[in-house]
Amino acid sequence: MNQPVTCVRAFEVQEDAVVVLDQRALPAQQRSWRVSTPKDMALAIQTLAVRGAPLIGAAAAYGVWLGAHQALAAGLTGETFERELEAADAVLRASRPTAVNLFVGLDRVRTAWRQAGPDAVARHHAIKTPADALAQEDRQACLDLAAYGAPLLPDGGGVMTHCNTGALATCGVGTAAGVIRGGLALGKRFTVHANETRPLLQGARLTAWELRQDGIDVTLQVDGAAAWLMAQGTIHAVVVGADRIAANGDTANKVGTYGLALAAAAHGIPFYVAAPVTTLDLHTPDGNHIVVEQRAASEVTHLGGQPVAAPGVAVANPAFDVTPARLITALITNRGVARPVDVASVAALLA
Amino acid sequence: MNQPVTCVRAFEVQEDAVVVLDQRALPAQQRSWRVSTPKDMALAIQTLAVRGAPLIGAAAAYGVWLGAHQALAAGLTGETFERELEAADAVLRASRPTAVNLFVGLDRVRTAWRQAGPDAVARHHAIKTPADALAQEDRQACLDLAAYGAPLLPDGGGVMTHCNTGALATCGVGTAAGVIRGGLALGKRFTVHANETRPLLQGARLTAWELRQDGIDVTLQVDGAAAWLMAQGTIHAVVVGADRIAANGDTANKVGTYGLALAAAAHGIPFYVAAPVTTLDLHTPDGNHIVVEQRAASEVTHLGGQPVAAPGVAVANPAFDVTPARLITALITNRGVARPVDVASVAALLA
Repeated sequence: MNQPVTCVRAFEVQEDAVVVLDQRALPAQQRSWRVSTPKDMALAIQTLAVRGAPLIGAAAAYGVWLGAHQALAAGLTGETFERELEAADAVLRASRPTAVNLFVGLDRVRTAWRQAGPDAVARHHAIKTPADALAQEDRQACLDLAAYGAPLLPDGGGVMTHCNTGALATCGVGTAAGVIRGGLALGKRFTVHANETRPLLQGARLTAWELRQDGIDVTLQVDGAAAWLMAQGTIHAVVVGADRIAANGDTANKVGTYGLALAAAAHGIPFYVAAPVTTLDLHTPDGNHIVVEQRAASEVTHLGGQPVAAPGVAVANPAFDVTPARLITALITNRGVARPVDVASVAALLA
Repeated sequence: MNQPVTCVRAFEVQEDAVVVLDQRALPAQQRSWRVSTPKDMALAIQTLAVRGAPLIGAAAAYGVWLGAHQALAAGLTGETFERELEAADAVLRASRPTAVNLFVGLDRVRTAWRQAGPDAVARHHAIKTPADALAQEDRQACLDLAAYGAPLLPDGGGVMTHCNTGALATCGVGTAAGVIRGGLALGKRFTVHANETRPLLQGARLTAWELRQDGIDVTLQVDGAAAWLMAQGTIHAVVVGADRIAANGDTANKVGTYGLALAAAAHGIPFYVAAPVTTLDLHTPDGNHIVVEQRAASEVTHLGGQPVAAPGVAVANPAFDVTPARLITALITNRGVARPVDVASVAALLA
């Protein structure tokens, strides 16, 4: 990179607390929350003050560490100390029960303190190591995939992205947003087009905010305007993140992604998926085996607590959609780029 | 039709007033506004209490009639009566300066009272005739195109529509919504899928409401979910309205329509445009000659007065997009169906 790839930070680990950026208040307010107990970290995760799969994995791990810190300060040892750790683990595990990264983070931390033996000080120390490692590994994965992806972006024109895949969803520069930051750091001059991403508006609220914080120009549009911008010659590449990638490269991502991929293909615009290899799921052969979560109707029928839809209306609210591999120009990961995207190239990333 | 095609009513003409349904309050409240002066009608149009191109054409015409009624009641005659009519015309003409239908309606009314001679009672009467005719012609056009379009819809499955094209946008059963009402009146059993239609949410606020008022089941989804519903086999036809149709069939309609057409084509789903022949503009050879209005950034950055996007973000907010004729399976009008859609079939509708 010509310049270092940097970004705002979603959290900061202090000596006895983790200060998180309260994402619920964005973009209206930039509010910090000094979290010093496992319960508060669970609350931060549960209420979406802290969100984004890689980010909550690390945040939960630090949550257990906060519990150890608190127990140590209270002079607890042995079994009473251990009970505090178990209680911290339990409250964090219950904070977002469907988030895989949460359990991965908590499992790594639990393994570490169980292996550290009965001494409270040793255990306290042992917990910090995997928590830091989780954050550092994610930070590095973002940088690595940004380095692989940045050269693929155009110099000039427009690059479109969807949802939030940046510093507010990861421990580092982000996945798709990391690739965008990487391209700009290389000195490429393109305009970032962020789709607002209904229903939860992560593009408008979070992506636009964090890129503006870094001084990056962003143009926002409603999701329905994306295809028309492509037809107008405004968009020269699309780069999105992924929630799960099947063995053949079919990709589940925030709803709206599939329509973007269809429109990009119709206009001959490259469509990139950016994700760490931890998102690859070789146990899922293809997109037909990905179950798409249906979320609450109120996300669509209400905005800011106010009804915007007729009472009695039914709602289809799939959280994700699945984009077939044939519509994906390349898959950008921290282990390199798969292109074309198929069973062989996906497997090669993990070899 | 097996059953009459019916709908809620956006307005009702009384002896000395026009009672309009205040669309700003929907869907939370069903509020009537008894409009009895040209100024109030202009305000109703300006503030979008009354909206939809055919509807405001008729509403403006009735607005001049209200002015005549008022002037007659005040005992005005001759030039003072005429001055009131001119003032009514002026205030209504300024209410939505870009709305073509508004001027068409006002022009017809002005021609009528000028031809009626100097007598105030005769003029008052002369104004009512073209106002009623405008409303009646639009009502009939909706019924006719519904009759032509209804047989094209599937019996079973899902029919998707976009924006509001119904009783709240026309004087009758609507265009695309009229075709849907027609299909259901024929006894066809399909589920209506309404896209919420960002940024102004006409689908969620208006289409869902008016169809529910008529007892029609509606499923609402965010615009970004449309392509995924098609991939899931949920949608068997798409029917949308039109703001302007060029001589070759290229169609300008609410932003998001073009992306729907691309997705429908990718899935082999028929994509229908429904509009009265007054929407055909033979002076515009093709979509490249249609200028797409850019609307205020605040429609995207704010919701209910609250900011939902980062300060300093740029916004692309095209009000419409243009769908090329090759993506349109058939054009449904009050003079019949053009299929395939091309210069010859469009011209034949007007022959």
